[in-house]
Amino acid sequence: MITLTSDFGLKDPYVAEMKGVILTINPQATIIDITHTVEKFNIREGAFVLVSAAPYFPKDTIHLAVIDPDVGTGRRSIIIQTKRDFFVGPDNGVLMLAAQNHGIEHLYEISNPKFMLPKVSSTFHGRDVFAPAAAHLDKGVKPSEFGPEITKVAAPKFGSVERRNGSLIGEVWHIDDFGNIIINISQKDLPQNRVVNVKLPGVLQNISFGKTYAQAKPHEPLALIGSHGFLEIALNQGNAAEKFHAKVGDKIEVSTE
Amino acid sequence: MITLTSDFGLKDPYVAEMKGVILTINPQATIIDITHTVEKFNIREGAFVLVSAAPYFPKDTIHLAVIDPDVGTGRRSIIIQTKRDFFVGPDNGVLMLAAQNHGIEHLYEISNPKFMLPKVSSTFHGRDVFAPAAAHLDKGVKPSEFGPEITKVAAPKFGSVERRNGSLIGEVWHIDDFGNIIINISQKDLPQNRVVNVKLPGVLQNISFGKTYAQAKPHEPLALIGSHGFLEIALNQGNAAEKFHAKVGDKIEVSTE
Amino acid sequence: MITLTSDFGLKDPYVAEMKGVILTINPQATIIDITHTVEKFNIREGAFVLVSAAPYFPKDTIHLAVIDPDVGTGRRSIIIQTKRDFFVGPDNGVLMLAAQNHGIEHLYEISNPKFMLPKVSSTFHGRDVFAPAAAHLDKGVKPSEFGPEITKVAAPKFGSVERRNGSLIGEVWHIDDFGNIIINISQKDLPQNRVVNVKLPGVLQNISFGKTYAQAKPHEPLALIGSHGFLEIALNQGNAAEKFHAKVGDKIEVSTE
Repeated sequence: MITLTSDFGLKDPYVAEMKGVILTINPQATIIDITHTVEKFNIREGAFVLVSAAPYFPKDTIHLAVIDPDVGTGRRSIIIQTKRDFFVGPDNGVLMLAAQNHGIEHLYEISNPKFMLPKVSSTFHGRDVFAPAAAHLDKGVKPSEFGPEITKVAAPKFGSVERRNGSLIGEVWHIDDFGNIIINISQKDLPQNRVVNVKLPGVLQNISFGKTYAQAKPHEPLALIGSHGFLEIALNQGNAAEKFHAKVGDKIEVSTE
Repeated sequence: MITLTSDFGLKDPYVAEMKGVILTINPQATIIDITHTVEKFNIREGAFVLVSAAPYFPKDTIHLAVIDPDVGTGRRSIIIQTKRDFFVGPDNGVLMLAAQNHGIEHLYEISNPKFMLPKVSSTFHGRDVFAPAAAHLDKGVKPSEFGPEITKVAAPKFGSVERRNGSLIGEVWHIDDFGNIIINISQKDLPQNRVVNVKLPGVLQNISFGKTYAQAKPHEPLALIGSHGFLEIALNQGNAAEKFHAKVGDKIEVSTE
Repeated sequence: MITLTSDFGLKDPYVAEMKGVILTINPQATIIDITHTVEKFNIREGAFVLVSAAPYFPKDTIHLAVIDPDVGTGRRSIIIQTKRDFFVGPDNGVLMLAAQNHGIEHLYEISNPKFMLPKVSSTFHGRDVFAPAAAHLDKGVKPSEFGPEITKVAAPKFGSVERRNGSLIGEVWHIDDFGNIIINISQKDLPQNRVVNVKLPGVLQNISFGKTYAQAKPHEPLALIGSHGFLEIALNQGNAAEKFHAKVGDKIEVSTE
């Protein structure tokens, strides 16, 4: 099974070209879209959707992700083998959070032209390098056949969570289509599984902590651990990101005492 | 075969997580998206796309629909068995029009945790309850194994068609992506299969009745029975909803004499 | 394998109805979406995505495309058999560029009601005529069984490339989701594979010619041969169409000397 994540959008032939390449190499492949509407060039958002979705797929799934602002430069193409699955894409951090989560075992560079399209363009490695790699991997080619094992890959640059006097400083990870504000503070970071106060930029907002949207009155805010395991600010039947003018990358301060 | 309908949108990992869960339980499942861009929390619109699409799928298809503003509250999760297929989702009316159309035979509550994910979140029953139920049903588990048979479920609250002095009073059901205004008056409600006059809110509009868009001049309106079997106001090569400022829920008066 | 291209958008049940029809006739069919967000009624854009994506699919793929402003009028429904695949859709030019590219061998009208839905609507031949035709073709029905062989079909009306004193006059073919301006001048039209100057409407812009987006500074323009084999004006990590106010159909003058 192969999943696809990209910032290609839905109006162009690009995603279909990747699928055509995969199905030409491996007509039996099952291909599932995670999303293709990651914000353009937003590696952080791509990493978020991948880290959220990957755990729900079967063992040995191949996750291909292409958010690739540096296509055609020297950035490497890589395969990551983890304890439960494979990740294929550019070496820019987009794959790393999900891969680390699943326990990285081996890293390989994709350099063997045998497993690329005969003509590799400078602008679309999703189709010419990553799609053929995923298809061959799905057919049973060993990861070590694609190129040399490597030891260092680009680390994701997204802010990590800081602790400061009983507060946690995190950042907005993703705004979902409901307007829920998803923050890079996970359930594990909240030892008593509770939040006393959430401070968004420019707003001291005393948001109560709960379990489900409908615990808040309609259009009232609620903090909760979302279905992805991260802290989330939501508005019951409303759009929290609009109400609080939140955007990806905003710093968030959470007091837990 | 399993179809999916939701208001989850296309940018988030949520739909993919449901597919991952289904394919983990039943790797052979064929999954088809009906749509994931139902207006948020709009049960009526979800019911419309389901009632339109379901008849075109093979017998025994499992239709999973999640427009679920009350997730995490006491609302029940249900399976409806009809003469030709199955419906899985929240007990809020979203499944009922399509199910009634196909002849309801049995109603079951989903309560057996054996057929849910080990950890059920309070915010995402689509992934944790409905997706596993659909996957197990597709694998051959009997509907009665998911929970007790029940007799009463939530009825849809959408306006039904009224008759008044030779007129029919209906309402706007759905605005499609072409701007066609689809009304909850079906072909059966129009005995002579003709319409003399269509009155939209605030506009007395004498719209002629025809068979196909191109019968009207470009950018001129036409009333017709659409491909879904309902009355539709269209503009040839134009957007009727924009021209007439129509929106879902608007009352529509149709004279047939 | 069957691909689908349309201007139906993603919010309505229309695409799913086509898939339901195909899978009812041929439950084994593999269905891949090319795109459903072609601009409404824009045959030129539909032709572009099809000509771009089709070469990446396996031999014998059936490409179904429905951009069909004249549905329900006298326009014919056709099957085109090429040296490597099949095209199914309305006779309005949308299929022709891709089909010509692959070497047209036979043209057939679809007129045999045996291979249509029992009731053919006047507004949705995608579901009632083209989807069943594609499904039966995929199951092995010979193209000649759908109707008579024909010799003349509608030619696409899109501007072709003109040569004038060492310049090429082309037009904007497609604006992709990244804002890249794709022009109907192909690699073959540029003998030395270089461009000296690109003139957009109202702008004399000296755009340098390169190989990959990252060769330009961030937000600076670059002309290159895109992954589809056509001339493309891009902005590194930016939106060229917005910057240059370009739209589909704009004339473009390219000097190559």
